[in-house]
Amino acid sequence: MQQSRDSAGTGSNHRVVIVGGGFGGLHAAKALRRADAEVVLIDRKNYHLFQPLLYQVATGMLNPGDITSPLRTVVGRQKNTQVLHGELNTILADKKQVRMGDKVLDYDTLVLALGATAHNYFGNDRWEQDAPGLKSVEDAIEIRSRVLSAFEAAELEDDPAKRRELLTFVIIGGGPTGVELAGAVGELAHLTLPGEFRNIDPADSRVILLEGMDRVLGAHTEPLAEKAVTSLRRLGVEVLTGSMVNEITETGVRYAKNEQDHRIASRSVIWAGGVKPDAGIGTLAQQLGVDSDKSGRIPVNRTLQVVTHPDVYVIGDLAQALDEHGDPLPGLAAVAMQQGKYVGKRISRTLKGKPVREFEYRDRGTMATIGKKAAIADFGRMQLWGFPGWVAWLLVHLMLMVQFGNRLIVFVQWAYNWFTNGRNARMIRWTRETAEDPEHSNRADSRRAA
Amino acid sequence: MQQSRDSAGTGSNHRVVIVGGGFGGLHAAKALRRADAEVVLIDRKNYHLFQPLLYQVATGMLNPGDITSPLRTVVGRQKNTQVLHGELNTILADKKQVRMGDKVLDYDTLVLALGATAHNYFGNDRWEQDAPGLKSVEDAIEIRSRVLSAFEAAELEDDPAKRRELLTFVIIGGGPTGVELAGAVGELAHLTLPGEFRNIDPADSRVILLEGMDRVLGAHTEPLAEKAVTSLRRLGVEVLTGSMVNEITETGVRYAKNEQDHRIASRSVIWAGGVKPDAGIGTLAQQLGVDSDKSGRIPVNRTLQVVTHPDVYVIGDLAQALDEHGDPLPGLAAVAMQQGKYVGKRISRTLKGKPVREFEYRDRGTMATIGKKAAIADFGRMQLWGFPGWVAWLLVHLMLMVQFGNRLIVFVQWAYNWFTNGRNARMIRWTRETAEDPEHSNRADSRRAA
Repeated sequence: MQQSRDSAGTGSNHRVVIVGGGFGGLHAAKALRRADAEVVLIDRKNYHLFQPLLYQVATGMLNPGDITSPLRTVVGRQKNTQVLHGELNTILADKKQVRMGDKVLDYDTLVLALGATAHNYFGNDRWEQDAPGLKSVEDAIEIRSRVLSAFEAAELEDDPAKRRELLTFVIIGGGPTGVELAGAVGELAHLTLPGEFRNIDPADSRVILLEGMDRVLGAHTEPLAEKAVTSLRRLGVEVLTGSMVNEITETGVRYAKNEQDHRIASRSVIWAGGVKPDAGIGTLAQQLGVDSDKSGRIPVNRTLQVVTHPDVYVIGDLAQALDEHGDPLPGLAAVAMQQGKYVGKRISRTLKGKPVREFEYRDRGTMATIGKKAAIADFGRMQLWGFPGWVAWLLVHLMLMVQFGNRLIVFVQWAYNWFTNGRNARMIRWTRETAEDPEHSNRADSRRAA
Repeated sequence: MQQSRDSAGTGSNHRVVIVGGGFGGLHAAKALRRADAEVVLIDRKNYHLFQPLLYQVATGMLNPGDITSPLRTVVGRQKNTQVLHGELNTILADKKQVRMGDKVLDYDTLVLALGATAHNYFGNDRWEQDAPGLKSVEDAIEIRSRVLSAFEAAELEDDPAKRRELLTFVIIGGGPTGVELAGAVGELAHLTLPGEFRNIDPADSRVILLEGMDRVLGAHTEPLAEKAVTSLRRLGVEVLTGSMVNEITETGVRYAKNEQDHRIASRSVIWAGGVKPDAGIGTLAQQLGVDSDKSGRIPVNRTLQVVTHPDVYVIGDLAQALDEHGDPLPGLAAVAMQQGKYVGKRISRTLKGKPVREFEYRDRGTMATIGKKAAIADFGRMQLWGFPGWVAWLLVHLMLMVQFGNRLIVFVQWAYNWFTNGRNARMIRWTRETAEDPEHSNRADSRRAA
């Protein structure tokens, strides 16, 4: 089954196939809305995920539906665009075709924007089951279930040592995701839950942020990172830097600090140590005749094209792109968005025979929230922290989210939770399988009385 | 491990253990808030579910989190009450103990409010995989995934007959759940999705409501049921009454009407034919020395006590209770709530040595919505339909939901969707397993291009 060109009836002869509906792919599709091209956006999920707020789903502050927008709602009404729900299997670069299942799609230009959807355990993939990472809605629901189940299991636990273990939460990785998660878990334990239990006091919980380098938020300036640490400590988070994790099991974490070995007994370990592209990307790179780099990304030139196939662009976390100094661009939503816009415009202009300059990333600032009253924001010349930082963070994210499908409702909910300390999105996932599987009953997420 | 009495430190000697945090159990716990008793509420889920709106989750209108409230938020701060997260295994009625896992809890009074959580396929349990029912959050997410995936698969399908099959939705059972689901699916197909696809027109979908009796909404008056059918037809729903289903498979439904056999080819069949208590209830009934009735409910007397054990109350869908005429009470949220309140008050008064009358259900009216602009409401002397019916429905549900944890946000979202025709809670569940399992790829919920 081969899809003929121009199935959207646009009258155009140029078909752009975009794979991936994250920040990069979606911005590319939007930038092509007035192009003389037929656009096909493929994703294996039927929604765009606003990843920067995923940690709020993982801690019960927001619903998954609050930070997702159906792709069909966002670009499905764009006249020259078709959304297809499926997974890319193969690139037949010489034939200019892609395969999804048994369907074959011709393309004139291909934009790969598949993102980094796997967690980077740096060779210790066995850690994944005991220290899940946070990148998808499914991840967020898993982490939410584990964290909330730990409090429930602690309430039922008679052994003080086990109770302590259940009430110890370790977040590994002091980048923005780790800092935001640790702040949110700290807030959950110290502000939201106290008063709701009888046998435990959630405020006795330990929330520990482990970072291998000598400070957190390495991408930010040192004074700002210090402010973040102060805000974290205010929420009861212990920040341990220079601490290299060397083992994670069901019952805790071992790490080395100052050449000494330490161990934290914990039933809830969360991995925020980094992400990488899916393992399957290596095959796609081969099909394009290039080698992916050691973290699995596909190298592109300064115009974001694959050198061997200039009709193939790679953007976002999947791309190994260099800036004007030859340094790799960071894996940030802002980079992906700008690359998506750039590629969309580039394709439009090229179709009109107009010249296009090389891609340049403009750093408009980076930020991270710590709990609901503090954030750090680095706009280069201006740096904000504490409450003013939080207001800046809120405004920027408000602006970004409204672009993707009118998510004003999210802000109503935030405002509400902000004033009430409430978190309503707190369902622990329940399945008959886990309830009846003895494998699960001695874990932190035990659905049974322990 | 045996939990000693008065672990909540209430100074009371009487412990009431309530099993189940649905409408019945939660109202019982709330009615006991000033009682001279220690209350323990046990549930295997950590949240209360507002079931009347579950069909809106199943059709992408609301998030699961919008219609659930953490039990700890609802009653966890009630001083004499403790919430425990676990599952009841055994009742040791003679010792006045219950077991959850390896934990043993003493009780003075036991309230069983476990509800009807299994679907009643009337002996055809094999139908469940092809026609899931709607009773839990998990059910709603499953149905949402199937319905939305069917549209996605149809967009990718080249064979017109298969496309037709994918765009045919059958809801079995013309009670309130079936009517509300059919209306919501009709609205999704005819109002929300059109314009978002290129190869199909969602408005071509067939939405069919099958009912075995000669009319829908048998519990309502005939004129009101007629109004409901008119509203359903306006949303493009075909209502087939007198149609007895005799087979459900992956590809469709066979039914008999006027002694003739018919078949509908469909990839999305939803069961709204009724619910019953979990199979495990039979064992609990045995432990109480009584026989459950043929639909699995536990018989109680007019004061909602188990005859063999007056210290055990059974309420809600789990109870087989009779009214003053000897007729069984219907399985409605309103009945469960009133029974919960009654039992809570009865226990309080009994502890004070005061007399209590028998339980009497007061029918304050029943209602059902059809899409977002019509409903029927039957208040006995007053009957409403169409838009006035919808306003009445909205007010009643607003009132009910606000009681359970400030869900005003739900109404903001409704209002928003109402004006925009939007449905944002439209995630199709994605797992690597289903994507890679060929078993799933030829089903309606295929995650791959077909």
